[in-house]
Amino acid sequence: MATLAITGGQLLRPDGTISRADVLVDQDEGTILELGDDLAGTGETILDASNALVTPGFVNGHSHVAMTLLRGHADDKPLDTWLQEDIWPAEGELTPEDIRAGAELGLLEMIKSGTTAFADMYFEVPEIAAAVDTAGLRARLGHGVVTVAADEAAAREDAQTSIDVARELDGAADGRISTAFMPHSLTTVGEEYLDEFVPKAREIGVPIHYHANETTDEVAPIVEERGVRPLAYAAEKGMLEPEDFVAHGVHVDESEIELLAEAGTGVIHCPGSNMKLASGMAPVQRLLDAGVTVGLGTDGAASNNDLSLLDEARDAAMVGKLETGDASAVPAEAVAEFLTHGTADAIGLDTGRLEPGAAADLAVIDLDAPHLTPPHDLVSHLAYAAAAADVKHTICDGQVLMRDREVQTLDERAVCDRASERAAALVDRVAE
Amino acid sequence: MATLAITGGQLLRPDGTISRADVLVDQDEGTILELGDDLAGTGETILDASNALVTPGFVNGHSHVAMTLLRGHADDKPLDTWLQEDIWPAEGELTPEDIRAGAELGLLEMIKSGTTAFADMYFEVPEIAAAVDTAGLRARLGHGVVTVAADEAAAREDAQTSIDVARELDGAADGRISTAFMPHSLTTVGEEYLDEFVPKAREIGVPIHYHANETTDEVAPIVEERGVRPLAYAAEKGMLEPEDFVAHGVHVDESEIELLAEAGTGVIHCPGSNMKLASGMAPVQRLLDAGVTVGLGTDGAASNNDLSLLDEARDAAMVGKLETGDASAVPAEAVAEFLTHGTADAIGLDTGRLEPGAAADLAVIDLDAPHLTPPHDLVSHLAYAAAAADVKHTICDGQVLMRDREVQTLDERAVCDRASERAAALVDRVAE
Repeated sequence: MATLAITGGQLLRPDGTISRADVLVDQDEGTILELGDDLAGTGETILDASNALVTPGFVNGHSHVAMTLLRGHADDKPLDTWLQEDIWPAEGELTPEDIRAGAELGLLEMIKSGTTAFADMYFEVPEIAAAVDTAGLRARLGHGVVTVAADEAAAREDAQTSIDVARELDGAADGRISTAFMPHSLTTVGEEYLDEFVPKAREIGVPIHYHANETTDEVAPIVEERGVRPLAYAAEKGMLEPEDFVAHGVHVDESEIELLAEAGTGVIHCPGSNMKLASGMAPVQRLLDAGVTVGLGTDGAASNNDLSLLDEARDAAMVGKLETGDASAVPAEAVAEFLTHGTADAIGLDTGRLEPGAAADLAVIDLDAPHLTPPHDLVSHLAYAAAAADVKHTICDGQVLMRDREVQTLDERAVCDRASERAAALVDRVAE
Repeated sequence: MATLAITGGQLLRPDGTISRADVLVDQDEGTILELGDDLAGTGETILDASNALVTPGFVNGHSHVAMTLLRGHADDKPLDTWLQEDIWPAEGELTPEDIRAGAELGLLEMIKSGTTAFADMYFEVPEIAAAVDTAGLRARLGHGVVTVAADEAAAREDAQTSIDVARELDGAADGRISTAFMPHSLTTVGEEYLDEFVPKAREIGVPIHYHANETTDEVAPIVEERGVRPLAYAAEKGMLEPEDFVAHGVHVDESEIELLAEAGTGVIHCPGSNMKLASGMAPVQRLLDAGVTVGLGTDGAASNNDLSLLDEARDAAMVGKLETGDASAVPAEAVAEFLTHGTADAIGLDTGRLEPGAAADLAVIDLDAPHLTPPHDLVSHLAYAAAAADVKHTICDGQVLMRDREVQTLDERAVCDRASERAAALVDRVAE
């Protein structure tokens, strides 16, 4: 049995407290064997965590990882214009090789910011799965379905692709990859396709993930046409089950909060993207108060513009206070959960808790920095002051993905160069 | 003449465009001599800026730098409770040595995040000035006056201290330090003291800096008692001159925006603090549209919780969109100005523009990172994706304050250790 010991650190426990402990990992099983005072002698490989905070690897509940290729390509535009003028034309030109290159860039950035698991909606998903396999993260992947602009044959093919991808990739990368059926949203996928393909998703036993209530434009047409709120419509269509999770949930009313709580459906809060696209502020404290499982997501890099969950955590705490006018809303402790088991639970991945028997997915955050001094409260530092570059080591499934800021599974220089070349060529093709 | 060449970089110009140039600095005069294609041969000292963005050193328009000692000491509380239960009791126990230690920690953090100039309101200002002298930054410093809880003798002494400090420290540290008269706010300083001391500030020729309209609690009592908005009251008291600048300006109405624009008084936007304390969102785009000079400030580390202006810049762009519901508000270009000459102009420091003859205050941002790839738009990256740890070199007044992440003017280890020791002892004293 290959073992790894992470020694000398302060440990973020599942109950949100922090205390001293070494961590011993079974690398073959990818699980935590033991937490204890002095486990340095028992590990074949040692990672130093002195003056560091050892947390579960961060979990990103909603991303479009290959969109890193479009980071900074078009900013300061509202969602609709931005999608129609910039993002969709560029995405129409993406080749499978582009998506592989963009995914590798995004995974590199995730590893460097302590993320070990994520849920992703995009297309050419086998390319993303291959990148995940190489990079070593854990993921729930799916093919995003959009039927509004397609003829019936193309729309059905798109939806069938989402089902096929979900069935074929589930369990890939030694079980690190799981999947979901991913209709893009309740306004971009026609009802007839939901009626046909939601049951197929249930047959193959995968959850359903979709954008919901991100902007008022995603609410008003449904209310107008159907006389019910979008999440009531989702419930009618069988898309509000305990294993399902929606992204954004910005414009949800009290009835929808209640529906989410009763159903056990998770909501992935994406505060950075919601601010940048002026979509609004999700009622996160009210969701928490109602008992909804809330996770955190970065959305794509084109609307954020980075994939660091530590940035997103600070945004969540900040926006939570603005939205309520109450500085005690969405406190540091809530944000620490969002970063870890909160989001893991929302997207149905078995990670996010440091305890014996749990998945050995960890991030080690170096506290030896002026902006993390003095050490009054490490949960506060995690929520408000720590940044991506403070992550020293990243471990997923017992494997060391980054050691002392050196990524072990991807060639950083080659990944960045390839992404830059492909991004430049893409923009040239779109301009033609 | 000692010279420094910064070579190979992309340069952020005063007009907001970015293009290739080397920078040649006269270190004796602390000014930029020349911008050109190939100046490597002319510098005695060379700083490498290849694959890097060379910007003016960032300018922090409102801070309480020594409050780093209270970072993470009390979070998730509204402004009033937070001040009365946590901050003021702790500040009451601060010794001059504590303030020196806290200031050095804050300056260390500023240097490591590319900040070269700042405006600061606190007490024991000679300690802060000594730290600035050592650290090598540029600053406008002042003693914050609070008279509401004091008897008349103590209140007058406090106000006189602010005048004395402003007179005595102006021009210190070889001219890098300038000063201001700093009454804390319009509600915490009695009218009689404004009437007496504002003219004294004018006599000695320093600007006036104060908190204004940060929360509704700073607006309602003035409107109730005087029948005018706070900034109309400020104008009556002679505190709304072109050289003056106010912090926050969250709850300003149209009449006050007009007053600010006509007066030429600057507003320092502190979005991080305003979010964390649930104070609200300043109408930044409307201030800009009206022609008000807007700057950016971190406020103290206890309400932020870091002093990185790159974080603050992203917050400003994000909150600007939320506040208006318009994703094109407060775009990346506006934020690039806030980081540099916008704030410099607001606080009246002659820095923030890279051009021959200007102050040699610079930050060099390493672009060789996954989260800054691909390089579609470097202004976008500056606003949305760059982080403190990407700052590679920091130069102020022609002197290298940080080279390859190694701070040259402060002993990082010693400063952090001293701050941690003093912060722990402080919290113990407060608890007694």
